[in-house]
Amino acid sequence: MRELTTDHISQQFNAELETLRQHFLTMGGVVENQVADSIQALLESDSELAEEVKAKDRTVNQLDGLIDEECTRILAKRQPAATDLRMIVSISKAVSDLERMGDESKKIADHALNLISEGESPRGYVEINRIGQMVSRMVSEALDAYARLDIDQAIRVAKADRNVDLEYKTALRSLATYMMEDPRSISRVLNVIWILRSLERIGDHARHICQHLIYMVKGVDVRHVATDEIENIRSKA
Amino acid sequence: MRELTTDHISQQFNAELETLRQHFLTMGGVVENQVADSIQALLESDSELAEEVKAKDRTVNQLDGLIDEECTRILAKRQPAATDLRMIVSISKAVSDLERMGDESKKIADHALNLISEGESPRGYVEINRIGQMVSRMVSEALDAYARLDIDQAIRVAKADRNVDLEYKTALRSLATYMMEDPRSISRVLNVIWILRSLERIGDHARHICQHLIYMVKGVDVRHVATDEIENIRSKA
Repeated sequence: MRELTTDHISQQFNAELETLRQHFLTMGGVVENQVADSIQALLESDSELAEEVKAKDRTVNQLDGLIDEECTRILAKRQPAATDLRMIVSISKAVSDLERMGDESKKIADHALNLISEGESPRGYVEINRIGQMVSRMVSEALDAYARLDIDQAIRVAKADRNVDLEYKTALRSLATYMMEDPRSISRVLNVIWILRSLERIGDHARHICQHLIYMVKGVDVRHVATDEIENIRSKA
Repeated sequence: MRELTTDHISQQFNAELETLRQHFLTMGGVVENQVADSIQALLESDSELAEEVKAKDRTVNQLDGLIDEECTRILAKRQPAATDLRMIVSISKAVSDLERMGDESKKIADHALNLISEGESPRGYVEINRIGQMVSRMVSEALDAYARLDIDQAIRVAKADRNVDLEYKTALRSLATYMMEDPRSISRVLNVIWILRSLERIGDHARHICQHLIYMVKGVDVRHVATDEIENIRSKA
């Protein structure tokens, strides 16, 4: 593979790139907590935690704006090439995925508040717990992979998304059946379904982040490549 | 406002930017058709059209990859500044929104095929028609605004998204009631709900594209600014 060479023109440029990377990982940490907390808020009927998740949206949006500004400033001032350019393009794309993961967490928190206020624990919590754990792990591992430029882990995360999709479809089928058996539960179960949908979307975004990382390290765009084929890219130049 | 000055270093650079812009608008045209066709396929029970929408996903993904490559190549080779740089950053972001609109259209086509194969026209088609028309118009107008750098129109589109959200919420409430009254309809109505959800997402993406346009022309990031406040930006420097 092409090495992540350091053809930086100055120490200062290095420092700017490192700051950008740190800000990205900071934003990742905030979103990672949002995702985990939104699930915990629901499962433990913790309205206060749900409100905290919603409040963090402001921080995420600020970091999103800041990182975008930094990317544009570095592009204008430093005219980066090769790996540095790919890193900036990759972060600029990945930050949009982080921001949308934050949005989905906020939606989960909203539905959690609805469910908490209705006071009764409906079906689907087992599924939310299971899929929630899978997705939370994907988010953490995607960010770890980004921090350590770990392509193998990025591929594992991208693959894990298939399991999330399968679990999600199974859960939807069983919830549809449950609604038919107990129509009074429909509005509550719809809240559960929206939460599952948001979790599934968060899994998609974690996969996208891994694809942006693969692009950054390998210079190959794998967004529209089947997960199996991505494995081949690992061994290529 | 700051003029869209032409500090290009060469005719060739101009040509490259124009090609990039044209590719973006071409991709926009494909996605615009996908959105409109996915709705028409459902409302007219046209399975063939639904399959066409799904098949176009390939074209959209290819254009997505091509445009991203062009953006990165121009950044590396031309080291653009000021408005040119903003145009590239803006297109690079907007193209992701287009790609996801294409994905949502594909999902609509899938649910349309489910509904067509079940053979009976369920509730919610009136709502899909109404919201579908609103969203299709938003997509066309967002692309028009991009083609003509029309900030006023971009603001109108961003505002229209609020109406889509309101209509969407109203439709969801009435469909939930309908499911309670007729539990046998649940699986069909869920297909309708997923279609509405995809339409609502497409409206969000159209709004994002307008926000990227405002950033390009005005140099102001309005993604996390309330729609009312965006109006003020129009009159600013």
